[in-house]
Amino acid sequence: MAQALSWVPPLPLLQVSAHDMESAETLLGAAEFVVIFLVARLLAEVLVRLNLPTLIGELVAGVIIGASGLHLVLPPELQGNISANLLHLISGLSSVPQDVVDTIYGETSVKLASFSQVGLYALLFLTGLESDLKQLLKVGDRALSVAAVGVILPFAGGTLGLIYLFEVDLIPAIFAGAAMTATSIGITAKVFGELKYLKTSEGQTVIGAAVLDDILGIVILAVVAKLATGGSLAAAPIIKLLIAAIGFVTVSLFLSRTAAPWFDRLVDALEAPGEKIVCGFLVLALGCFMATAIGLEAVLGAFAAGLVLSNSKHVHELTALTEPIVALFATLFFVMIGTGFDFSVINPFDPGNRDGLVMAGFLLIVAILGKVASGWAYWSQEKTNRMAVGLGMMPRGEVGLVFLALGGSTHILTDSLEAAILLMVIGTTFLAPLLLRLVLPTTTEGGNPELAGTTSS
Amino acid sequence: MAQALSWVPPLPLLQVSAHDMESAETLLGAAEFVVIFLVARLLAEVLVRLNLPTLIGELVAGVIIGASGLHLVLPPELQGNISANLLHLISGLSSVPQDVVDTIYGETSVKLASFSQVGLYALLFLTGLESDLKQLLKVGDRALSVAAVGVILPFAGGTLGLIYLFEVDLIPAIFAGAAMTATSIGITAKVFGELKYLKTSEGQTVIGAAVLDDILGIVILAVVAKLATGGSLAAAPIIKLLIAAIGFVTVSLFLSRTAAPWFDRLVDALEAPGEKIVCGFLVLALGCFMATAIGLEAVLGAFAAGLVLSNSKHVHELTALTEPIVALFATLFFVMIGTGFDFSVINPFDPGNRDGLVMAGFLLIVAILGKVASGWAYWSQEKTNRMAVGLGMMPRGEVGLVFLALGGSTHILTDSLEAAILLMVIGTTFLAPLLLRLVLPTTTEGGNPELAGTTSS
Repeated sequence: MAQALSWVPPLPLLQVSAHDMESAETLLGAAEFVVIFLVARLLAEVLVRLNLPTLIGELVAGVIIGASGLHLVLPPELQGNISANLLHLISGLSSVPQDVVDTIYGETSVKLASFSQVGLYALLFLTGLESDLKQLLKVGDRALSVAAVGVILPFAGGTLGLIYLFEVDLIPAIFAGAAMTATSIGITAKVFGELKYLKTSEGQTVIGAAVLDDILGIVILAVVAKLATGGSLAAAPIIKLLIAAIGFVTVSLFLSRTAAPWFDRLVDALEAPGEKIVCGFLVLALGCFMATAIGLEAVLGAFAAGLVLSNSKHVHELTALTEPIVALFATLFFVMIGTGFDFSVINPFDPGNRDGLVMAGFLLIVAILGKVASGWAYWSQEKTNRMAVGLGMMPRGEVGLVFLALGGSTHILTDSLEAAILLMVIGTTFLAPLLLRLVLPTTTEGGNPELAGTTSS
Repeated sequence: MAQALSWVPPLPLLQVSAHDMESAETLLGAAEFVVIFLVARLLAEVLVRLNLPTLIGELVAGVIIGASGLHLVLPPELQGNISANLLHLISGLSSVPQDVVDTIYGETSVKLASFSQVGLYALLFLTGLESDLKQLLKVGDRALSVAAVGVILPFAGGTLGLIYLFEVDLIPAIFAGAAMTATSIGITAKVFGELKYLKTSEGQTVIGAAVLDDILGIVILAVVAKLATGGSLAAAPIIKLLIAAIGFVTVSLFLSRTAAPWFDRLVDALEAPGEKIVCGFLVLALGCFMATAIGLEAVLGAFAAGLVLSNSKHVHELTALTEPIVALFATLFFVMIGTGFDFSVINPFDPGNRDGLVMAGFLLIVAILGKVASGWAYWSQEKTNRMAVGLGMMPRGEVGLVFLALGGSTHILTDSLEAAILLMVIGTTFLAPLLLRLVLPTTTEGGNPELAGTTSS
């Protein structure tokens, strides 16, 4: 009993009372929240007035308060570099020593990352809810071509260019090429959603292709992870992944056509309050679990869960109930991406950066052209905005950062190649929403989401 | 650069790939979510049909899946006792060894606790939004009497009874008495909200008294923590806390009367989407920060933030936007409380438990009578449901558990006294919503929240 309830804190924390520790945690958490949302919201207001996606404001907010700026909010892996002013403030207010606050910051940062992860799942769930299954099925073959070309061109161009133009070794060149195949499904979903283009045939093509790209990305990541750690390449796990992927898409599409009425009957039978959002999120959690269990990414499960419920008669309420969660937690997700961008490696006045910069310029051009070209990868009789499709596939965002983190942990990349990949990720992530805004005319002035449907079939 | 992005995991985790680790984390998180919400929802449906508060279902769900039951979800301090079946399942699905999954479970559990904390803040924010400032001010003096009597009677009765009837030493007796003064503001807010009695004069009296009880509780906790660790009692920090408390209440009430128009003007000026929930939660985070910074509890700041915005013209939208967050995360909070209840100490067939059980019976009776009597602590000409007020002050819930955790960590309590306090906490927590349901007639059959106003002035 006594043993069960007494919590033994890690050694350096033993001198500090549990109440002070909790105060420091709460102060840090609340301060991070305020900093993140104040800066992101200020920038979002500027961008909205410039008629640009607010996502850019969230990424820039992350850069300003993160590793390249004020060091107020850092992703978990950059722990230990937090702003001395913030430590000083929290330490002063909570009577907890600065080094302990630093340790607590590490935990806060892990918690922020998990909130932001829930935000990403909620965003993909919302994207699924707002998707048009018929439209998505109609453009399925286009999405497949777009995904395939958007993987092959950047991979081939990046890998071969690095080998023949920059004399990079085979394995790191393959790794960099693989990083270039990524598409950030989060950023694509957010920008198309915000610009009210999600339900258009271009929007559904890009979302479908981003989903397929994510599936391909997992296979590619599995291969390069083996190459990077010097492991032998076996065909079995890759075939297993491919079978899982095909099974996943099949089951998702089947449930999207059949499961919504069951869900509606269940929700209608429930009487305790909060039944719609709880049941919706249960489906979301099950989707994430299933996708992860068969070796795919949880975001795919989140999207599939939303797609399954997009035919529910409660879809409008589910959307409305999910929106505040996305507004809070998905913002965290994009700001956290920005906090991890380290711009010091692209300072052109530092001669040590020059090699990386030249390589970065090359990778960036291949990364842009390869994905933009994917917009021309399908045949269509009707008028279609191919540039929007290509640009929609362009942002590498969080998926590019996953490749980078793997490269960093296996030490197969030189500093300049790592910097070049980071710059390629940053460049495509910022340019995509900017350029998309240029090629997608404003559909509605008043921000009425219903109007989005008018541009689709 | 390379150093900045490479994350070095703790030693036992080095053999496992980052992707598998992430899979295990996602699987665990999703599985816990599904287990928690499936069981809580099932029980809530039963309770709603019995016309009882769903909160009881959430607490019982915690007991079933927690330390007293299936060991599927445990609070962070009980880490290491997780169900072998769950470990086996997650380990099998993610190819991560069971001991590593166990370590990851510890982190998942910390994350769940922080989500549940956000749920508590959101619930108190919602309670503030739904409060009626005029009513709250009108019953301010009643609330003060109720809080004072509800602290003095259980403390005096508990401490003296333990000393004279059970021959407990002075310091542990004072500690147990102090634990009996607590009122769970979370449970009170949830039950009165669910039964649509929040805006009645009884509801506002109980909420006001629970807030004041929380403030008194912090002072009491500071005193007994000093006593328990053998420190000398200085008047200065207690006077500082009292000044902070008075300042906090004054500033909150002032802002509640004045700040809403500023908030409305700000929200109206914003154009980027999600402005209402983001601004609302910014006020919430600032409230939590301020309350913690002056040494009070963050929940008080969350309630004050809601109260400040209760006069906003956007209050109905803010309420609607906060509700899904409360439905998800506050449920987590109450389930997590249940997971920490260890019923093995009250098994009457174990002779080692008998001493504790007799003492527990005594403490439970004093704990109930002391708080119920507080309902008669004020003078009123109008008809008032004094039993509802007294019962509203009764649940010790999470606040009682904070006292218990402190007692456990300082080792001043015998096993039987600790078991007795836990039983007192469990008993009052479960009895309060049950008995409240009996003394508060159903206000509305259809569950229309607008009807709640009809019972208030």
